[in-house]
Amino acid sequence: MPNPMFEIETNPHSNVRHIVAVMSGKGGVGKSLVTSLLSTSLRKKGYSTGILDADITGPSIPKMYGIHGPVEVTEDGSYPKKASDGTGIMSLNLMIAEDQPVIWRGPVIGGTVKQFWTDVMWGDLDYLIVDMPPGTGDVPLTVFQSLPIDGVIVVTSPQDLVSVIVAKAMKMAKLMKIPVLGIIENYSFMSCPHCGKPISVFGESRVDATAEGTGIPVLAKLPIDPGFAALVDEGRAFDIDLTLDEAVKVLEKL
Amino acid sequence: MPNPMFEIETNPHSNVRHIVAVMSGKGGVGKSLVTSLLSTSLRKKGYSTGILDADITGPSIPKMYGIHGPVEVTEDGSYPKKASDGTGIMSLNLMIAEDQPVIWRGPVIGGTVKQFWTDVMWGDLDYLIVDMPPGTGDVPLTVFQSLPIDGVIVVTSPQDLVSVIVAKAMKMAKLMKIPVLGIIENYSFMSCPHCGKPISVFGESRVDATAEGTGIPVLAKLPIDPGFAALVDEGRAFDIDLTLDEAVKVLEKL
Repeated sequence: MPNPMFEIETNPHSNVRHIVAVMSGKGGVGKSLVTSLLSTSLRKKGYSTGILDADITGPSIPKMYGIHGPVEVTEDGSYPKKASDGTGIMSLNLMIAEDQPVIWRGPVIGGTVKQFWTDVMWGDLDYLIVDMPPGTGDVPLTVFQSLPIDGVIVVTSPQDLVSVIVAKAMKMAKLMKIPVLGIIENYSFMSCPHCGKPISVFGESRVDATAEGTGIPVLAKLPIDPGFAALVDEGRAFDIDLTLDEAVKVLEKL
Repeated sequence: MPNPMFEIETNPHSNVRHIVAVMSGKGGVGKSLVTSLLSTSLRKKGYSTGILDADITGPSIPKMYGIHGPVEVTEDGSYPKKASDGTGIMSLNLMIAEDQPVIWRGPVIGGTVKQFWTDVMWGDLDYLIVDMPPGTGDVPLTVFQSLPIDGVIVVTSPQDLVSVIVAKAMKMAKLMKIPVLGIIENYSFMSCPHCGKPISVFGESRVDATAEGTGIPVLAKLPIDPGFAALVDEGRAFDIDLTLDEAVKVLEKL
């Protein structure tokens, strides 16, 4: 749970019913893909959603949704940018030149994430999804301490190496008393588009073993699909035809 | 070049001729794989190498090399752990329980990286390779300001999304006057292990286009090979049969 000493003010123009963070500890396993799939799956069921891109130094969300800055700034705060599917998005890449590196010390990066909560007029949202950066440094610490997070969805991939780092992320959430709502394995399986035979690109799926004994449900196993990368690169992540039904069920119970 | 105001002391028991950082901006593109391939390729030519794992919150190197902590600590400093191929390695995962998350603020993380330089007795090394964390935050900033880095090798992957974030990393290096020695594209191509036909998993290779006009050479295009993931998971990254000849040539000219 957020620490009352650190918890920060919600913008008066925000009415966000639930906040869920997507994290993994390790980069490149598909946090941003899972973030967009969660938003799309929730929207298909009629919920309003927003995405807070907390990956300040490596933001992916604007490109995946085909949106560009600048955002509209008023005296009362900034408006999130609406993607063409209706998702409200706030990301540092909507505020600076897109290829400009953000060479900032941790406290400044953490401060930016706080501003994405206090200074953004999120409006009326059923779910705000926070796309976390890799690792367990300043930003996850700030998000966990400062925002009223309902829970975390952890993203993993079949590599043994990844499961070690994901274990760290899960321990961090536990230490900070944030519920882990479920695990989603990305890159779980692949079929050759030519001969249809299965290919084990990063190793065999092992998310069931990782989850066993933890009481944490496995909410999805996502395929490696070159079509996903193509849609992401086209800025049409919301057109990926894959619904995270189990994850939606868990989020509906919050 | 390192800022004389920030540059830190070398351990008197270290005699490191060249330091090269491997960075990407984006996580999961294969920085640690490239780090290990560089070390292996240099060792095949008779050079001595060490790896400084600067990915404090998501360290991969010890697991890839099948080594575990603790490291030997003396009054003069710590010894890097020797992997079975002879590479000297220092990583936070050799100093703490391997599944323990490091929930630290940026300055503490940056301080740890500095200690990996000042307090580690690297011995006599031709090349020290620094495996950077994703992003352009505290650690890259500290490494660039504090360590006498000769240059950077940038790792990318075919996704358009990745090239945006890699551009940020390259701009950061330029701003900090660190030479970019070359680009290596990971996940460049794949053949189905059953039918042998090519599969474009993350999109078509585009590193030549990314490099064009920058004057920065493309040093390698690495395949997606399930065998690599298997060797990495077995802690035998140094047994991957792939030599980075072009990269070695560039490093020999330093």
